[in-house]
Amino acid sequence: MTSTTESASLSEFDRDITITPEGDDFTGTMSDGWRVGGGINGGFQLSFIGNAIRSALPDHPDPVAVSAYFVSPAVAGPARAAVRPLRVGGRTATVAADLKQGDDVRLTVLATYGDLAGFPTDDVRTTAEPVSLPPRDQCVPNTMAPDEIKQMAPFTQRFEMLFDPDEVGWAVGEPSGRGQISAWFRLADDREPDPLSLLMAVDALPPVTFDLGLMGWAPTVELSAHVRAKPAPGWLRLRHRTRNVAGGMFEEDCEVWDSTDRLVAQSRQLALLPR
Amino acid sequence: MTSTTESASLSEFDRDITITPEGDDFTGTMSDGWRVGGGINGGFQLSFIGNAIRSALPDHPDPVAVSAYFVSPAVAGPARAAVRPLRVGGRTATVAADLKQGDDVRLTVLATYGDLAGFPTDDVRTTAEPVSLPPRDQCVPNTMAPDEIKQMAPFTQRFEMLFDPDEVGWAVGEPSGRGQISAWFRLADDREPDPLSLLMAVDALPPVTFDLGLMGWAPTVELSAHVRAKPAPGWLRLRHRTRNVAGGMFEEDCEVWDSTDRLVAQSRQLALLPR
Repeated sequence: MTSTTESASLSEFDRDITITPEGDDFTGTMSDGWRVGGGINGGFQLSFIGNAIRSALPDHPDPVAVSAYFVSPAVAGPARAAVRPLRVGGRTATVAADLKQGDDVRLTVLATYGDLAGFPTDDVRTTAEPVSLPPRDQCVPNTMAPDEIKQMAPFTQRFEMLFDPDEVGWAVGEPSGRGQISAWFRLADDREPDPLSLLMAVDALPPVTFDLGLMGWAPTVELSAHVRAKPAPGWLRLRHRTRNVAGGMFEEDCEVWDSTDRLVAQSRQLALLPR
Repeated sequence: MTSTTESASLSEFDRDITITPEGDDFTGTMSDGWRVGGGINGGFQLSFIGNAIRSALPDHPDPVAVSAYFVSPAVAGPARAAVRPLRVGGRTATVAADLKQGDDVRLTVLATYGDLAGFPTDDVRTTAEPVSLPPRDQCVPNTMAPDEIKQMAPFTQRFEMLFDPDEVGWAVGEPSGRGQISAWFRLADDREPDPLSLLMAVDALPPVTFDLGLMGWAPTVELSAHVRAKPAPGWLRLRHRTRNVAGGMFEEDCEVWDSTDRLVAQSRQLALLPR
């Protein structure tokens, strides 16, 4: 667990997911820096509660599978995480956990944790193709976003995100219509990726529906993330895709590839189409 | 809710998911007919607890998203479902639910329900391609399985499953190595598909790792299912795929297409590779 006494030298990500044991729970503070519009980014909430789960499971430090249901919008301010172990085995442990602000549940999750360093490393048979992106100096940086976006979504200033120029037309009213957005990704302060930060990374890209010309907010119904390996240091590549827009909903699949071409995280969320 | 007094005319699926209110909970019986090896099929457990959630949410009859963590193997015999509402809104409701046998939790889920009949029907922009299968009389039926398989897994006798002949080589020791298994699917008694039976259908095919030559049991870490529309009557087409076998784990994506070429359900599970 990250202790508050180390805060001075921490990256902003580590500082902001810092939690403190309090009775059976863990308390911390949601920083406004992770806000998108009226609420704190869902992926950041996952990293925050994920840090509490990590603290509750000393022998199982890494998220392997996390399924999240967002019950009400989280806001800047104090937050409390409660973790309830359901099964603690040798290789994995499964818990239920809630994130509350006051009496309001913001987020409820089920999660299985383990020690990814103890998982096999010699059995990689991935047939998925790594996310292919132009060199970073040919991509479109998130720093080009208008000031009004930066104020509406300070979240977007917590990382460098360099978009594939073929998949960022939505920013100028010319979406590709394919349902795909890809980008290079690195946390602010050059903070290296780890399993906890991957929980945020899978929800960091804009809604894939932007690329279909649907520019509104797309509330998440459910998000499940699988962390498949400890990421190597360096830039990540992220990709959102959707293949089934229908019935007022869409699925959004995220892949996260590390600098060694390993598929280190996959997620799928079901979200509501913008009205 | 299906009442026990109707059992005489029910399909075996409806008979076996029948639950009865008892205090705040719902009770029923896991039938040995849904067993695979030492435990009751996970998808059937989802339909069973899914029926209890349906009963607890009269205004939100259909599963939309269900995330399941299997805590211990369910066995034939009495079972009890407890459902705890977290948020009941106009369009959707979110609950936590547990399935217990005696004091042992078998399955814990988070789920969002709604009324799929009230979701839009004129916005289908699915780019996924329907599962393509040869005509049913050119496929390989599950009834050809050896008697030892039928006894080990009576579950496989609860439905007709007609496999794509190009993806069933594993049954004779010649897996394709592609990581894909597809089949036609229909419940016994010609019971038509509905949102509850789709929760079972997404976990009905053999583990996709069979097609990679890994023939053992693959325990599920996490399974999330999205029901995207009420299925039309008739045969379903199911497909399992995996693209990231690594670290002792694999993801298994299921698609369920109905007789009108609508992608009615998607699921992803994270499972452990056979040892």
